[in-house]
Amino acid sequence: MTDTTDDYGTVSDLDTDNHWLGDDELETVRGRVPMVYVEAVPVRLDEMGQVTHVGLLLRAMADGTISRTIVSGRVQWGETVREALMRHLDKDLGPAAFPRLPAGLAPFTIAEYMPDASRTGFHDPRQHAVSLAYVVAVEGECQPSQESLEFNWVTNDEAASIAVSAEMTGGQDRIVRRALAHTGRLP
Amino acid sequence: MTDTTDDYGTVSDLDTDNHWLGDDELETVRGRVPMVYVEAVPVRLDEMGQVTHVGLLLRAMADGTISRTIVSGRVQWGETVREALMRHLDKDLGPAAFPRLPAGLAPFTIAEYMPDASRTGFHDPRQHAVSLAYVVAVEGECQPSQESLEFNWVTNDEAASIAVSAEMTGGQDRIVRRALAHTGRLP
Amino acid sequence: MTDTTDDYGTVSDLDTDNHWLGDDELETVRGRVPMVYVEAVPVRLDEMGQVTHVGLLLRAMADGTISRTIVSGRVQWGETVREALMRHLDKDLGPAAFPRLPAGLAPFTIAEYMPDASRTGFHDPRQHAVSLAYVVAVEGECQPSQESLEFNWVTNDEAASIAVSAEMTGGQDRIVRRALAHTGRLP
Amino acid sequence: MTDTTDDYGTVSDLDTDNHWLGDDELETVRGRVPMVYVEAVPVRLDEMGQVTHVGLLLRAMADGTISRTIVSGRVQWGETVREALMRHLDKDLGPAAFPRLPAGLAPFTIAEYMPDASRTGFHDPRQHAVSLAYVVAVEGECQPSQESLEFNWVTNDEAASIAVSAEMTGGQDRIVRRALAHTGRLP
Repeated sequence: MTDTTDDYGTVSDLDTDNHWLGDDELETVRGRVPMVYVEAVPVRLDEMGQVTHVGLLLRAMADGTISRTIVSGRVQWGETVREALMRHLDKDLGPAAFPRLPAGLAPFTIAEYMPDASRTGFHDPRQHAVSLAYVVAVEGECQPSQESLEFNWVTNDEAASIAVSAEMTGGQDRIVRRALAHTGRLP
Repeated sequence: MTDTTDDYGTVSDLDTDNHWLGDDELETVRGRVPMVYVEAVPVRLDEMGQVTHVGLLLRAMADGTISRTIVSGRVQWGETVREALMRHLDKDLGPAAFPRLPAGLAPFTIAEYMPDASRTGFHDPRQHAVSLAYVVAVEGECQPSQESLEFNWVTNDEAASIAVSAEMTGGQDRIVRRALAHTGRLP
Repeated sequence: MTDTTDDYGTVSDLDTDNHWLGDDELETVRGRVPMVYVEAVPVRLDEMGQVTHVGLLLRAMADGTISRTIVSGRVQWGETVREALMRHLDKDLGPAAFPRLPAGLAPFTIAEYMPDASRTGFHDPRQHAVSLAYVVAVEGECQPSQESLEFNWVTNDEAASIAVSAEMTGGQDRIVRRALAHTGRLP
Repeated sequence: MTDTTDDYGTVSDLDTDNHWLGDDELETVRGRVPMVYVEAVPVRLDEMGQVTHVGLLLRAMADGTISRTIVSGRVQWGETVREALMRHLDKDLGPAAFPRLPAGLAPFTIAEYMPDASRTGFHDPRQHAVSLAYVVAVEGECQPSQESLEFNWVTNDEAASIAVSAEMTGGQDRIVRRALAHTGRLP
């Protein structure tokens, strides 16, 4: 779970979200109910629709470490899942990424993040979040935002490797492997 | 969206949920972030695994009307999606229902309930809720709780009919038809 | 089930398929084992990935009647499911259609066509065929081949209507409704 | 791909299949069109519907080697996918296995076996087969048929391990890992 700024009320949030949350208020809510999250595994497809590469961000985390992450963030009050996906994809991959959301409505998997990592294997020290995960084909050029240090396309084999998995946190490496399995590309 | 009592702190909730919410507090939170819900379409299967009947509750709604509903309720803080499903199935169908959650983790569809019905076609005047929907085979006998007036098994054709759809509210008839389509049983 | 010419050995088939079948031989094989088919429901997506229209061909059938159909055809020996989908999409929608196969590998539904329509509700007088169905986003312009009289985009509501369903045969109207349900767009 | 006897006309085949194939005829057909197969990954579920174990057969293969396999076999002419699954599950796991086919109709993945292993990574020297794969909960006791040497329940971690994968052939280990990913149980 890697979103940070979207919970801190940017101007665009004020414009679109009548139910804006201050930091303190969000902190309180987070301890009361599960948050709704969306996650997108960015992929490159060949001309037959087969995944050839997985896109990963490189980010400085709150605790000072550096991790590879997929696109991830909160669904705001009044925002649809598709709107939240597009907002986080735009924010994380830049305006020239041209992400294509799948026609299918159901997520290919879900992840349940909790402060207690032993509950589900997905860990978020800040909150209980139920995340709906989608595979999103990206056709354009990705320009990571200021929050990210890098954006890289890695091959399916690399994405499933122990080395890359070790660079991911919170259990997101499992979402990547599930995405590869869902698309028939897990080694 | 039909759960009522689970949000009003029963004893069992106090036992299992350290993050119990008072009525006022829940009201506040509901206006700030989307709630996580689960919904189960109870079904009878024949020996080949094919859906033969759909189970529907008959309930008095908050506004005094009577509606047919599927099983539906909130995911509490710290509770997994499977735990929430089992809790609501037990509460709504009774202890002898013997529901069998599917092995697959992803919901077969999602529904996004909002106070503004025009946004997604799913309507809940109280809140924005993102609901994960599952088809759940039920093998035992269903004894609806005190909150429900009746529980009935209807055939697939009846479940998809205009007559039964008209007895459902908030858009749940669409979830039933999606469940029938997912299982290959939509007429 | 609407493919006709692909089973009659065009030059391109001879080039790519070492296991070419003559008419008589195919007839014999069809009576011995189920055939593998693919079907594509062509759709237009809006910028959020939501289905806005379904594409339907208008065809003169073998029995002289006219039907609306989706894209459908046999998988040849040695051909992958994705290759078969692309071949039939190109043949039926023309070279400027630019179909985009989904990243997900599993079909969203299957249809089992049999000479005895009472078995599954899907009917093909010629054969037993197991068909893997996919929703395929089409971005370009569709130019129906000579075999088709027309190609039309209809709205989701029209695609699910009784009127349009009545113009389809063999059970394909059910595949269209399942596709709409899968994408959250069934009325 | 492990079925052997079902293609060689047992008495029960003669009873149920009017389109019985002699050995020579099947051999010929196999070289002309893709065969339709079904595969079942047998699983044990806990009371919450979560996979705890995967069931694997130990079999002597045609080439004299020994392999672990999942349940697999051909769909016969006139037989539905669900009928074929039940027939092969009964044959491979015995009459007291009590398999429960999922309510969902679509396979969770497909596998395309070809004589040329480089095409898809799934290999069957005898034929091109398109296999529809399902996760099947098994509640009873499994008594492997005479064709199998053993039947064993292994944990999810074991099922995904390099050691167990190395004991499987044709690519079936990838189907097992996809099944674990689909059910949220891939390590």
